[in-house]
This record gives sequence, C-alpha cells and structure tokens, in this order.
Amino acid sequence: MSEGLFITLEGGDGSGKSTQTALLERWLTDAGRTVLRTREPGGTDVGHELREIVLHHPGEIAPRTEALLYAADRAQHIATRVRPALARGEVVVQDRYLDSSIAYQGAGRVLGAGEVRELSLWAADGLLPDLTVLLDLDEGVARGRLDAARTRYDRLEAEKAEFHARVRAAYLELATAEPERFIVIDAALGVDDIAERIRARVEPLI
Amino acid sequence: MSEGLFITLEGGDGSGKSTQTALLERWLTDAGRTVLRTREPGGTDVGHELREIVLHHPGEIAPRTEALLYAADRAQHIATRVRPALARGEVVVQDRYLDSSIAYQGAGRVLGAGEVRELSLWAADGLLPDLTVLLDLDEGVARGRLDAARTRYDRLEAEKAEFHARVRAAYLELATAEPERFIVIDAALGVDDIAERIRARVEPLI
Repeated sequence: MSEGLFITLEGGDGSGKSTQTALLERWLTDAGRTVLRTREPGGTDVGHELREIVLHHPGEIAPRTEALLYAADRAQHIATRVRPALARGEVVVQDRYLDSSIAYQGAGRVLGAGEVRELSLWAADGLLPDLTVLLDLDEGVARGRLDAARTRYDRLEAEKAEFHARVRAAYLELATAEPERFIVIDAALGVDDIAERIRARVEPLI
Repeated sequence: MSEGLFITLEGGDGSGKSTQTALLERWLTDAGRTVLRTREPGGTDVGHELREIVLHHPGEIAPRTEALLYAADRAQHIATRVRPALARGEVVVQDRYLDSSIAYQGAGRVLGAGEVRELSLWAADGLLPDLTVLLDLDEGVARGRLDAARTRYDRLEAEKAEFHARVRAAYLELATAEPERFIVIDAALGVDDIAERIRARVEPLI
C-alpha cells in the first residue's frame, strides 16, 4: 500500500512550471502511480467563483479581503481535493501553493510575509508539501529576454522588474529556510535537463 | 468636530436586534448625528456575492472555507464602509459583528472560538466596537415560546435548543470578559424599555 505524496511547483511566470508539471505527471503515471494534477488559485468550483470576484469585481477589493479570498480558495481546494487524493495514496502534483502566496503577497508589501504564511497554513490546516520544486529564473536572464525585445524600460517596466526581483528573493529565502522540503533548479536550463533533475529528487520518494 | 463611534448589536435570532438597531438609528439621527446603519454578513457588494456562494453552492463547503469567506466579507465591509464612515466622524450602528462569529462558529465546535476571534480581528485589522449591546434571550423564555407553539420537541428541535444554549453561553462569556465594551440587556423586556437602556449607555458617548 503506497502512501500519498504532495509535490508543489513554484516560480515566477515564465519559469516553466506548467511544462514541468505536465512532464512530471506523465513520468509518474508511467511509473504506475495515480496522479492528481492541480493548481492554485482556482482548483475548485468555489475557487473559480472567488477568482471571478477578485479579477472582475468593479469596485475596490481591500487587500485583506483579497488575501482571505485566496485563503478560502486554498481551504476549499486542500479539504475537498488534495487531502482526499492523498488519503487514497495518490501523488498530488500542484502548480503553485503556500510559497506563492508568501512570495507574491509578501513582496507586495501590503501584508507581512509572516501573516500571509500563518493565514495560509490555517486555511490548509497545516498541510505542507513533501517536496517543493522551485524553478528559479535569474534576473539577468529575465532582463536579457526583456532587453532583446525592446530598447528601454519605462517606469512601469522598471517597477515590474523590481517587484519580480523581490518575489525571487522571497522564494530563495523560503528555500534556504527549508532545505529538506525544497529543490531549487535554474529555470534557464533546458526542459529535459530540468525534468531529469526533478525526477532524480522524486524517485526516492515514490 | 465629533469623533466616529462604532456600536454593534448582538444576540440570537428573535432577540430584537433589527428593531433596536432601527430605533437607535432614529434616535441618533434626531440627536443630530450622521448614522451608517449596516450589518454583517453581507454589508457590501462583494459580501452579497460571498453570501450567495456560502448559501447556494451545490457542493460541499469546507468549514475553514466558510470561516474564511465570512472573514473576507468582514474585511471588505470594515475597510470600505465602516472605517471611512468612522473617519468622517459618523456613528456606525451595526447588526452583528465579531462576537457573532465567535459565538456561532465557536459554538458549532468545528473551529475553536480563539481561532475564529483571531481570524476575525485580522480581517478587521484589529477594529473593536466602542460599545456592544447584547440582547440576551433567556432560554426559559425561548423554550416557553416554543412550548406554547407545540406539545413536544423532536430530536432536531432538541439539538437546536442545545445549540442556541451554547451560543447564548458564549455571548455571555464574551460580555463578562469585556465589561467596558458590553452592555447586556434582557431581551424579554419591552421594546421601549430596552431602547431606553441602550440610549442611557450611548448618551455619554456622543
């Protein structure tokens, strides 16, 4: 009787999370495991409705309202989909979780990272992943890609770059604090190379 | 320049909160104060949408999801309606707040009262009322009203009675812990008598 395994993939937009999530799912399925591939936010019906509210509400959404709606989405997703799958002995491969909330909301600086973590963990009733894959995209590479596309930054792009640098730093700090849970992989590597490194870390767990 | 004042009314269903909220609003308006009369849950557009989800979602809503949705409603209501009104120096008269969440969700026993209080206070960024009116309905009176209507309790009614007894006990405990914030009034008294007692406590504050 195999035990459930909870793996999350984290990283900035464009770091290749979706591609690697799909490759990992296929590899695990080929290895004979039943896989639940899922994501946050929006992994449940209730989550979809909440996402609609956050994205399309015409008026102001207060920062704490937004954080609580994301937490509600998480509570619903973990209680009704992830925990039942783990209880059935399945492998859950999830695109974004707890660490995304801490890195993005914390980097937004409206709420503290510690508060966001505490709220998220309460929502999930304390569930932490067995393994978290951080696809770390170097700022130099990200900036090089941007520079190739246009000749100069405007103010908004500079702010965006600064925000993403904060998100990246927050992710790396989380990985450093929990080395047993995290594997950090350079997202500038080739797709197959990254997939191979992920498998090497997952293999002893299954 | 007068300062804002935040008054909440609490108590079980049928304790007369709506009636007293309306009477207090009229009295304060006659006294020359600008009043925001409001309620939770559902005091904002976002809150209405969340309430729809909680009440009419076809599937399971996990207990933590529900608590977080109520907290999100609270965060939105306090940030976008109550705090701005208080900042303008108005009197906010509100039907149900923090203490309802603690008494009802805590009495439901799925989540602890301490957790619910902490979550609510985080949502509201720490805002406590200047005055909370607890309309306390004696179980004997409540039971007497039920007994007058039918000859015997079925199991569901007995459970309901037991639940309401726990809610009442939780309310009284909260009032005992914060005597400066609470005034407890016997809801079995006449409407005018209750209104008079509330005014006597509000008058020195305005």
